Amino acid sequence: MKWLRCQTKDETFYGLLNDNIVSKVHGSPFDGYEQTTQKFPIEEVKILPPVIPKTFYAAGINYKKHVLEAASLLNRKPNLPEKADIGYRANNAIIGHGDPIVIPRDATDKIHYEAELVVVIGKVAKNVSMEDSLKYVLGYTVGNDVSERTWQASDRTLWRAKNTDTFKPMGPWIETEASLNEMVTTVRLNGQETISFDTNDMIFGVEKYISEITRYLTLHPGDVIWMGTDGTSKDMKNGDTCEIEISGVGTLSNPVIKDS
Amino acid sequence: MKWLRCQTKDETFYGLLNDNIVSKVHGSPFDGYEQTTQKFPIEEVKILPPVIPKTFYAAGINYKKHVLEAASLLNRKPNLPEKADIGYRANNAIIGHGDPIVIPRDATDKIHYEAELVVVIGKVAKNVSMEDSLKYVLGYTVGNDVSERTWQASDRTLWRAKNTDTFKPMGPWIETEASLNEMVTTVRLNGQETISFDTNDMIFGVEKYISEITRYLTLHPGDVIWMGTDGTSKDMKNGDTCEIEISGVGTLSNPVIKDS
Repeated sequence: MKWLRCQTKDETFYGLLNDNIVSKVHGSPFDGYEQTTQKFPIEEVKILPPVIPKTFYAAGINYKKHVLEAASLLNRKPNLPEKADIGYRANNAIIGHGDPIVIPRDATDKIHYEAELVVVIGKVAKNVSMEDSLKYVLGYTVGNDVSERTWQASDRTLWRAKNTDTFKPMGPWIETEASLNEMVTTVRLNGQETISFDTNDMIFGVEKYISEITRYLTLHPGDVIWMGTDGTSKDMKNGDTCEIEISGVGTLSNPVIKDS
Repeated sequence: MKWLRCQTKDETFYGLLNDNIVSKVHGSPFDGYEQTTQKFPIEEVKILPPVIPKTFYAAGINYKKHVLEAASLLNRKPNLPEKADIGYRANNAIIGHGDPIVIPRDATDKIHYEAELVVVIGKVAKNVSMEDSLKYVLGYTVGNDVSERTWQASDRTLWRAKNTDTFKPMGPWIETEASLNEMVTTVRLNGQETISFDTNDMIFGVEKYISEITRYLTLHPGDVIWMGTDGTSKDMKNGDTCEIEISGVGTLSNPVIKDS
């Protein structure tokens, strides 16, 4: 199933997407829902971020090649994580499929995409074993962890480097039937493929993260975990379009605008 | 005005608190409200965290004495922040006044309180000047940034050190009429005063933080900014009660339990 959150001029709602038709439901995939008879062609709704999480988790460093690339860019020694320590991103920065990524006026040219698998939690999870962990996952969507690399190197936290408004595109929908081992993540900048990697080739996988973090914290329905990225990204500039496809999940596409 | 969020066996609601009587409203201080005629003695409601933010901001290091203490504990060189870079905490960890702080079984004895002023945002804020910044503040509440110091030193992020479930007590209410320069923060562990400091003696004040961060991000009604702490904290253990008073705002009290 594909869960789409969307907006018409009258309302905001969740729908099930089939053959480009959105079938509206009352409720949500997290709190229960009832189907309705209302249907909308996907072109006639505005696609919203599929969920605004209670807590927005991010693995950060979780692919080997990316560790080496980031270390070289930041002039630091590469440091592979030894444990599944989770990080965070911020809800203010979330936008949906099709919404523009707005580069602030005073940002440098080092604006990078990071293509990430997003795990969407479906049920309350605490003290979950690796074996049971995927039962708590509602499905998957796609995230772009947009990053300003000079701020990432200079600031005490990742606040504006990664959480400037519009720096967290997520969508287009939540796919509930995808299989981790079959996913391939591909980035296209203005239609040109720049990165392609096996999505599940992570240092610590989805099962490991859910199991480790729920020893200390409760995951809630609608929470998201962004699983990190691989490869070497290029600069994005005004007028670009950044498209991230995860096979079996969906394609997230966003135009890029430089604030003037 | 004191805004209390609370629960009876039938419902969850916001109320205005006067002389220990909660006057229920429909709606909230963030989305608009209407007064009702329903009143409850404060003893007859369960006090909830005054808000669950969209984004949970935290200044982190923001008082000089605390920088020196933390550096010495973590065996690091003291490092005073040069800019108002904001950090984050996580909603899963929020509890209200009176709720127990639960220390995980495998935590060390180094469980510390951190008494913090919490700024509650009332209006959408972007590109706000220092002069105008306090107009976007609905009011203030009290936070306890509970921290497990060994995890804080060992982990790649602050996830379990600061965001273990129950590690973010906040409350008891939002006070809308307090004045920053008159506040004194006092911590009492089992009734014994352990810390007292001028709340507004910050490296970067509320006005500076709001002005700096809204250059890049939008603050939303209900967002909170925890402003950091001062002084040297003591260990909390099973059976303790930690009380934080900010004069003119309120007193947040929580029992401490070690998970067994």
